[in-house]
Amino acid sequence: MGFGNVGKAFSRLMADKREICRERFGLNLRLKAIFRSKGAYFSGRRSDLTETVEIMASGTADHPAWTTKLSLDEVLTELKSGVLVECTPTNIETGEPGLSHIGQALGRNWHIAAASKGALVLKFRELMARANMNGVQIKFSGATAAALPTVDVGVLSLAGTEILAIEGILTGVTNLILTRMEEGITFQDALKEAQAKGIAEPDPSLDVDGWDTACKILLISNAVAGTGFSLSDVAREGIRGVTIDDIQKAKSEGKILKLLGRLVRDGGKDKADVRLTAIDKTHPLFNVTGSNKAITYFTDTMGAVTVSGGKSDPRGTAAALLKDIINIYRS
Amino acid sequence: MGFGNVGKAFSRLMADKREICRERFGLNLRLKAIFRSKGAYFSGRRSDLTETVEIMASGTADHPAWTTKLSLDEVLTELKSGVLVECTPTNIETGEPGLSHIGQALGRNWHIAAASKGALVLKFRELMARANMNGVQIKFSGATAAALPTVDVGVLSLAGTEILAIEGILTGVTNLILTRMEEGITFQDALKEAQAKGIAEPDPSLDVDGWDTACKILLISNAVAGTGFSLSDVAREGIRGVTIDDIQKAKSEGKILKLLGRLVRDGGKDKADVRLTAIDKTHPLFNVTGSNKAITYFTDTMGAVTVSGGKSDPRGTAAALLKDIINIYRS
Repeated sequence: MGFGNVGKAFSRLMADKREICRERFGLNLRLKAIFRSKGAYFSGRRSDLTETVEIMASGTADHPAWTTKLSLDEVLTELKSGVLVECTPTNIETGEPGLSHIGQALGRNWHIAAASKGALVLKFRELMARANMNGVQIKFSGATAAALPTVDVGVLSLAGTEILAIEGILTGVTNLILTRMEEGITFQDALKEAQAKGIAEPDPSLDVDGWDTACKILLISNAVAGTGFSLSDVAREGIRGVTIDDIQKAKSEGKILKLLGRLVRDGGKDKADVRLTAIDKTHPLFNVTGSNKAITYFTDTMGAVTVSGGKSDPRGTAAALLKDIINIYRS
Repeated sequence: MGFGNVGKAFSRLMADKREICRERFGLNLRLKAIFRSKGAYFSGRRSDLTETVEIMASGTADHPAWTTKLSLDEVLTELKSGVLVECTPTNIETGEPGLSHIGQALGRNWHIAAASKGALVLKFRELMARANMNGVQIKFSGATAAALPTVDVGVLSLAGTEILAIEGILTGVTNLILTRMEEGITFQDALKEAQAKGIAEPDPSLDVDGWDTACKILLISNAVAGTGFSLSDVAREGIRGVTIDDIQKAKSEGKILKLLGRLVRDGGKDKADVRLTAIDKTHPLFNVTGSNKAITYFTDTMGAVTVSGGKSDPRGTAAALLKDIINIYRS
């Protein structure tokens, strides 16, 4: 669903990785349909669409597989089973169009791999419960820092531990801006620079006002620590108000300002927030600079475990979607 | 198997985590038998042994469950199925006694969770093939940096990527000694200090001569990148010869000396080694100091992903064993 930067990157990645998936995992991937806002490419009797990804990506609606007469539900029914790959833009007010797509797919017992956040952020508990009841999985690595494995590590590698706290640098753009400010540039100039490089959006509010981090810490907390957060539970601040003076003050104390998404568990009371926090060099996230992301889980029996890095480009997100599909298949 | 520091910590952890495993995973853990070198505790008709862990740990062989008349194979047969938890000391020359334990358990279609390295290092391919054929799993987080998730992340979170290279700081003791030398202390003094703290063994050669790192990079490469390394394939150096001059020379170039376990893939030719390497501050492992461990996977589509931290004590190893058991059960 969706054929923007991530949808295209995912389709190309499927073409590139088909052989490897077959050889290593016995998984025969087929790209059966691509829905765009005005219609769909549908493979029909063709085995799949990966061979014509470049033709479709060039934007020609006169591709032989193009149709405006097919609904998602018809495709879901005709194909019987599979994974719906949700790559439409994130809307955290309505969750649409992802929410409808995921709802329809769950209704037909399809698995979900999601890169868009809206639907899950708004309806996490309902969607997971429905998937669980239908015996299908919803994976969302693509929506929770993508190539940086956050949910995987929390759910699988820390299984059996108590999560005492989570702290993450979860938005590359805000960390890049803070790093540039550290080097003496104002917020406005650092933002313009990131926009010129295509790293920040023309309307940067999702990132710089902390919404992106809020969505991610919500999804990660809910998945890993079983919290039932809604977006209104996540106290949030952004980085627009940060001045070079603030940065310098932290520096003079040996600290660095970071926008952290946090889960704080205070004697059974769970709280999530997005907070500008001055951390010192003993903190595991102190050295995460530039557009890098990282997350630290604080646990009872395993201590603090930190994951950092992972490409932030559409291909990195596509790789996270593919990983989720492989792991759905494996389980 | 084995009731030393790790075996005891694991038994205690089972007692502590029984309720959580039942609630969260629907997994009803039972500790049915503990084999020591001279005999075994066997639960028999009792539901399990966790309630008397402290009595057994105090060393009394007159515990009502103690027996010298029972063989491992009798227990494996009587219980029909389960997970063999291998916690005996690592012997990289013979693999024993772990190799015999694992062989017997696989013969009875038991799963394996291993903290000892010997058997897997010597017979990786044979044991994995046998497990595969019998439809059971061998997990070895406890033998591959334990609470630091190395194999999990490589196999699950990077599924579908090409592993271009692996670099890890995999032995806490050697990293601690190098960090202390960085602060101006000689190798001998840093080693004595680590021994006094109980971090280094009285015979430190497994660690300081690079064997421990070699075993870990071998197991990680084989599991994650499908290499078929034996220990003789891993070129190896240790840290005994490092002088403060070496450290200072690296420092003067803005670098730091680290003992890295590496997988290098050179145009289809795979090579593993343990090498003292001077890395600069752009390297993801530059800031891993003291007894901390970390691993970086370099991939085609996800970029570089680094995991760091994780407790190094017996309870951290026990937690890694428990995690493996939970994930065996989940799959």
